[in-house]
Amino acid sequence: MTDKVCEFLKGDEVKKFVDSMETFIFDCDGVLWNGIGVIDGAVEVLHELRKLGKRVFFVTNNSSKSREDYAKKFENFGIKVSKDEIYGTSYAVAYYLKEILKFDKKVFTIGTTGMIQELDELGIPHTGSGPDLSTGGYNIKEWTNLPLDPEVGAVVCGFDEHFSYHKLIKAASYLAKDTCLFIATNCDDRFPFNSTDIVIPGTGCLVISVEAAARRKAKVVGKPERIMFDCINSRHNIDPSKACMIGDRLNTDILFGNNCGLKTILVLTGISSLEDVKLCQDSNDAHNRDCIPDFYISSIDALRLPLNPSKYVKYQ
Amino acid sequence: MTDKVCEFLKGDEVKKFVDSMETFIFDCDGVLWNGIGVIDGAVEVLHELRKLGKRVFFVTNNSSKSREDYAKKFENFGIKVSKDEIYGTSYAVAYYLKEILKFDKKVFTIGTTGMIQELDELGIPHTGSGPDLSTGGYNIKEWTNLPLDPEVGAVVCGFDEHFSYHKLIKAASYLAKDTCLFIATNCDDRFPFNSTDIVIPGTGCLVISVEAAARRKAKVVGKPERIMFDCINSRHNIDPSKACMIGDRLNTDILFGNNCGLKTILVLTGISSLEDVKLCQDSNDAHNRDCIPDFYISSIDALRLPLNPSKYVKYQ
Repeated sequence: MTDKVCEFLKGDEVKKFVDSMETFIFDCDGVLWNGIGVIDGAVEVLHELRKLGKRVFFVTNNSSKSREDYAKKFENFGIKVSKDEIYGTSYAVAYYLKEILKFDKKVFTIGTTGMIQELDELGIPHTGSGPDLSTGGYNIKEWTNLPLDPEVGAVVCGFDEHFSYHKLIKAASYLAKDTCLFIATNCDDRFPFNSTDIVIPGTGCLVISVEAAARRKAKVVGKPERIMFDCINSRHNIDPSKACMIGDRLNTDILFGNNCGLKTILVLTGISSLEDVKLCQDSNDAHNRDCIPDFYISSIDALRLPLNPSKYVKYQ
Repeated sequence: MTDKVCEFLKGDEVKKFVDSMETFIFDCDGVLWNGIGVIDGAVEVLHELRKLGKRVFFVTNNSSKSREDYAKKFENFGIKVSKDEIYGTSYAVAYYLKEILKFDKKVFTIGTTGMIQELDELGIPHTGSGPDLSTGGYNIKEWTNLPLDPEVGAVVCGFDEHFSYHKLIKAASYLAKDTCLFIATNCDDRFPFNSTDIVIPGTGCLVISVEAAARRKAKVVGKPERIMFDCINSRHNIDPSKACMIGDRLNTDILFGNNCGLKTILVLTGISSLEDVKLCQDSNDAHNRDCIPDFYISSIDALRLPLNPSKYVKYQ
């Protein structure tokens, strides 16, 4: 077991680090914004990185939005971003099916309109979106007569506010055929949201339900899997040694970055804390050790310090 | 590791066995009936056991029906059964809350009208039944404003054809309080149903989703847990050494019987096969070894042989 240190990146080290990087890959929720709004400094940091000629990408596990939806969300926060810089898991699913697997059948979707937009854009036919409700009662006859589309060759499970028992029956029934592909956007069990009263379950809670019914595990395209990095890389030719991943979750963002051979930076404005880092450092488990970031900063704002030294004292 | 044999119960041994037992506990689906209808001999065996003065009980993990619903189902198959002989998991949940835990708050239910009937009958107040649907879209505002009932002190998860994302949010949010109880009817991942096309997901697929969202495990009242036996025992004073459990699933029925110190008989008209028994016998895993039945018979009809020897040759 090697001792991997998670360094506090500060002062001149920030400048040196930014200088040594060509590519900055950001997680969004918990890094650039949170439930309340944009995080201080996010707009400025992105602006300054671009001014320095750095390449900037955004990689999010949230499957509810298409890249177009995301571009609008960024714009609302005053951040100009092109569609080609945004990699959400709904897009990743469509990309993975079309470009990697050369899939040419129909998809049964558990997903939002954001996923439908991405499938449509890549010309992948689909079925299953929108509400699909039981007429009520424990009705074996109704269930066994649900129509199944013989052209379906894959089940895709992302976030779906219309998740229902009928969708679960259909997904499990399609997946009873070994040849049917099974792809999930991500396994996050909750959306990041600060409240003591309300818990907002994540896509992982739907995926685990379909997996139990299908008695099969889904292939996950979201972080920490490296598919979204391969997706960026295939278009932009990234040098991993000069690229860094900035995120707020150890077991998705940081593990993703480490899996892809990137430098990794944890921000403390989201899910994971320095306590969590310590737990990983103290662990003998290989998975936990792969979640240790190279560096941490208090928030994205810390990345603008070298460019704006007057703010530096604030973070000492 | 002791070698536990699963004996084929036949001929005179059946008569001897029946004579030595006072109490017969039957699983229903896969033992007395299946998707098509009543299983040959079920009506006659129950009739004959009663004539011999044996006590007969029915223990089912299916939470969709109340005991009253079940009594009607039995009647449709030509079997006269009193409500007090039927133990379903919806009743078990109500019994467990009221009689064992002395619970006096309100229950948030994921369940069918069958569960509502059982809670009503034991005077347990509840909320949450019936459809509870999203108005559509990824709508954090809608979700964070969902009304939570401050009187809720337990979440109960059984089968629910109206399972929805709103129900998942509410369940996980109630369960964020450590003091909130979390009870599930059962963990069966599928309903027994013979079809190559349609898979009918079981309650376990809903429970696992709520568990993931809540980051907590539910207390399960259904088989293989012994709560339903305790429930029967508290009213009927069973001598376990003179009681047997007859079921079609090793990891629920047979494990339940073994957990309760009963004799166990596997019938081959449902989920588990002799191959599955062999796998348990060959396994070093303690859980698997606890799933080995004492005996097997081809179907419930075999239990009437000593009373009707003319049919005997059929099963050789």
